Amino acid sequence: MLEQLKVDVLAANLLLEEYKLITFTWGNVSGIDRESGLMVIKPSGVAYNDLSVDKMVVVDLRGNIVEGSYSPSTDTPTHLYLYNHFPDLGGITHTHSIYATTWAQSGLDIPPLGTTHADTFYGPIPCTKPLNVEQITTNYEHETGVKIVETFNDHQLTLDMMPAILCNNHGPFTFGASPLAAVKNAKILEIVSQMAFQTYLLNQDTNKVAQSLLDKHYYRKHGKDAYYGQK
Amino acid sequence: MLEQLKVDVLAANLLLEEYKLITFTWGNVSGIDRESGLMVIKPSGVAYNDLSVDKMVVVDLRGNIVEGSYSPSTDTPTHLYLYNHFPDLGGITHTHSIYATTWAQSGLDIPPLGTTHADTFYGPIPCTKPLNVEQITTNYEHETGVKIVETFNDHQLTLDMMPAILCNNHGPFTFGASPLAAVKNAKILEIVSQMAFQTYLLNQDTNKVAQSLLDKHYYRKHGKDAYYGQK
Amino acid sequence: MLEQLKVDVLAANLLLEEYKLITFTWGNVSGIDRESGLMVIKPSGVAYNDLSVDKMVVVDLRGNIVEGSYSPSTDTPTHLYLYNHFPDLGGITHTHSIYATTWAQSGLDIPPLGTTHADTFYGPIPCTKPLNVEQITTNYEHETGVKIVETFNDHQLTLDMMPAILCNNHGPFTFGASPLAAVKNAKILEIVSQMAFQTYLLNQDTNKVAQSLLDKHYYRKHGKDAYYGQK
Amino acid sequence: MLEQLKVDVLAANLLLEEYKLITFTWGNVSGIDRESGLMVIKPSGVAYNDLSVDKMVVVDLRGNIVEGSYSPSTDTPTHLYLYNHFPDLGGITHTHSIYATTWAQSGLDIPPLGTTHADTFYGPIPCTKPLNVEQITTNYEHETGVKIVETFNDHQLTLDMMPAILCNNHGPFTFGASPLAAVKNAKILEIVSQMAFQTYLLNQDTNKVAQSLLDKHYYRKHGKDAYYGQK
Repeated sequence: MLEQLKVDVLAANLLLEEYKLITFTWGNVSGIDRESGLMVIKPSGVAYNDLSVDKMVVVDLRGNIVEGSYSPSTDTPTHLYLYNHFPDLGGITHTHSIYATTWAQSGLDIPPLGTTHADTFYGPIPCTKPLNVEQITTNYEHETGVKIVETFNDHQLTLDMMPAILCNNHGPFTFGASPLAAVKNAKILEIVSQMAFQTYLLNQDTNKVAQSLLDKHYYRKHGKDAYYGQK
Repeated sequence: MLEQLKVDVLAANLLLEEYKLITFTWGNVSGIDRESGLMVIKPSGVAYNDLSVDKMVVVDLRGNIVEGSYSPSTDTPTHLYLYNHFPDLGGITHTHSIYATTWAQSGLDIPPLGTTHADTFYGPIPCTKPLNVEQITTNYEHETGVKIVETFNDHQLTLDMMPAILCNNHGPFTFGASPLAAVKNAKILEIVSQMAFQTYLLNQDTNKVAQSLLDKHYYRKHGKDAYYGQK
Repeated sequence: MLEQLKVDVLAANLLLEEYKLITFTWGNVSGIDRESGLMVIKPSGVAYNDLSVDKMVVVDLRGNIVEGSYSPSTDTPTHLYLYNHFPDLGGITHTHSIYATTWAQSGLDIPPLGTTHADTFYGPIPCTKPLNVEQITTNYEHETGVKIVETFNDHQLTLDMMPAILCNNHGPFTFGASPLAAVKNAKILEIVSQMAFQTYLLNQDTNKVAQSLLDKHYYRKHGKDAYYGQK
Repeated sequence: MLEQLKVDVLAANLLLEEYKLITFTWGNVSGIDRESGLMVIKPSGVAYNDLSVDKMVVVDLRGNIVEGSYSPSTDTPTHLYLYNHFPDLGGITHTHSIYATTWAQSGLDIPPLGTTHADTFYGPIPCTKPLNVEQITTNYEHETGVKIVETFNDHQLTLDMMPAILCNNHGPFTFGASPLAAVKNAKILEIVSQMAFQTYLLNQDTNKVAQSLLDKHYYRKHGKDAYYGQK
């Protein structure tokens, strides 16, 4: 069942280690098959070097386990809320990568300070407001998804424009058309986070990228007039 | 004698290198067999790539060497005091890992700034007060253990809630039910220390994790209602 | 056609990974054959581990593709402007290396704070002024080259004295007599950038290298009286 | 001639790469045979992976090349001055390691902030005053040695107490009874430099190690009452 997607989700999870985005089991990647409406996700708390294709968990969009003998990631309700809300979303990555988590712990949006940022993220990368007590104590992981969508709406953002978000006092989620694309965005976010962190330490006065340069770099890689890479 | 424990203590010591927590011989791991009341610990000042099972030192809880031709770690009296005081303690790790030592040298508790912290440490990770001259000049390593226990008492902490502590101007000790668990906590402490260090540089105004989020993440992984990982 | 140069440009591009100067495809190296007036450059957006000699692109100095089935780097017009302007230039490297980009994002010149800097860079490493909207929206990559040359002229610098420059809100370009020399300068720039960044965090009051020490170290390695290395 | 010393000096130079203390050829290690009064040192500007035993250069204490077809390190006059001045000195290491150089560029002594420091360095690690113009323009490398000795005298330090020094706006020199011991001290200095750098960023108010704790840790490893390690 969904063999290729399970292979892809496993490979994407293993990339988290190669890209140095995780410690122990602190991260997860999922992917979705839109035709069947089924999500594949990493099992909860299993060490990366113990993962295999048959340990991946298949869940439907209401959260029922359809295949797999392991419990899915505890963050499953967050992933499901996002797949239900964003019909074009194909893969989700959650990590506690060190520099992105630094910004999330600071409760600050990551400002666009250069072309490295603009190549992927069209504007500041938002940090959500904190969840309130009721949201935390009731359906925490589900409410995390709700808060992410609220933040996208408040900032009038689409996933294309902004394939990443920071959850306050927690860490980043990144998005893509596939599990692999979501993991690549997690790596880009980490590098951009480190550059912005260091730039702020060096020069408190903002030296934000101009809107025209942001446009130039973003649209050099995205949209109908993109000209970066091979045709 | 205690072959399995010696194997475990050796393996845990070697993990210090793999986890990049030590330079040269600046660290040690011990484990205890509660039935016989015997502790196994790394020999003092022996390079990690020269360690072997038969070089591990077996010591009773009054500090007598029971087996082994090497001198035990100079920190042995600290370990013994802690095993004598905490009846459920199974393994102890001491390192000079760089970010945790940064906090120890600063003399500051590590504040809980995010869920990465809350997943393992229930509240601020305490830094002890400095030892006084008499404590340093008399039984320094023993008094280090006494000061650690005092700090746990002052903060009304248990090892379950707080499997780590910083010794002022010195470095961290971490704890676990086994030598391996203690080393894993040393790695988690180092990552949490780096994240908190960077967060403080970015945002001096505290953005501490809410009590409800601290509870949520801590109890998601600990206690009777834990639901992280596999059953 | 230009086989040796293609081999050299490929090898220089692969060094970017070995020197940890790039993430994904965010960098490029070119080289020029002055006799034929042809430049060899990396294809745009191709992963480093997919590169091969026959994928290198040969372009003339007006930007016509002379050989190669791939599109050249999008930064090609910047490279061409520089080769046209500087007759002794043999190789160009562009990266988004993290510490050099930190300075570029800060909009600050890198001050000469020590002999590591003075061994290669004769004075502050300049950061360009930002491009204006028209420059960004019209011929962005060409205008980037124009701005680099302007900055060299404004500071009365030669490539010998200053084989590196920072483009504001963007990242570094480095130069050399060959592709390999340009990549080595990209690595030196990154180390010098990290040292200067850390020095500024530690000591806001400048402790700039004296002019005499700058002269001593620069001329120990450059010019007719150089005495570093083997004859 | 001096085969074992050449082997030792080569091995010590190669450790600089393994310990991540150098970039390209920016460092050198020497050793001395006190009986013959001859020093062995790395050749100038030769890449580390091109070094071999027969490329090591043998120099007498007045600076005459006694054996070897390569030019010795340009820092040779510094090494010679120090061997002539300190009769017990057996090995010298010079690097541009990043954190130690950060302190040297800041012109600041490294304060003793913890036991990691106290285990090896008995008090602040001094940074020299800058050389004056005449010292730089005349016999720069020789004067560097003179300034190091002056700084030891001004602070009433011995090599036993302080096997490291920072040259202002330049970088560190470290010392030992052998080339290997000098390289180990270069690694310890780098770790101590990073810890002190980070501690200063976190807590500007000094939390210096108490004199009694400095004594305790230093004398735990040094002198007649040392009890660290194996007998």
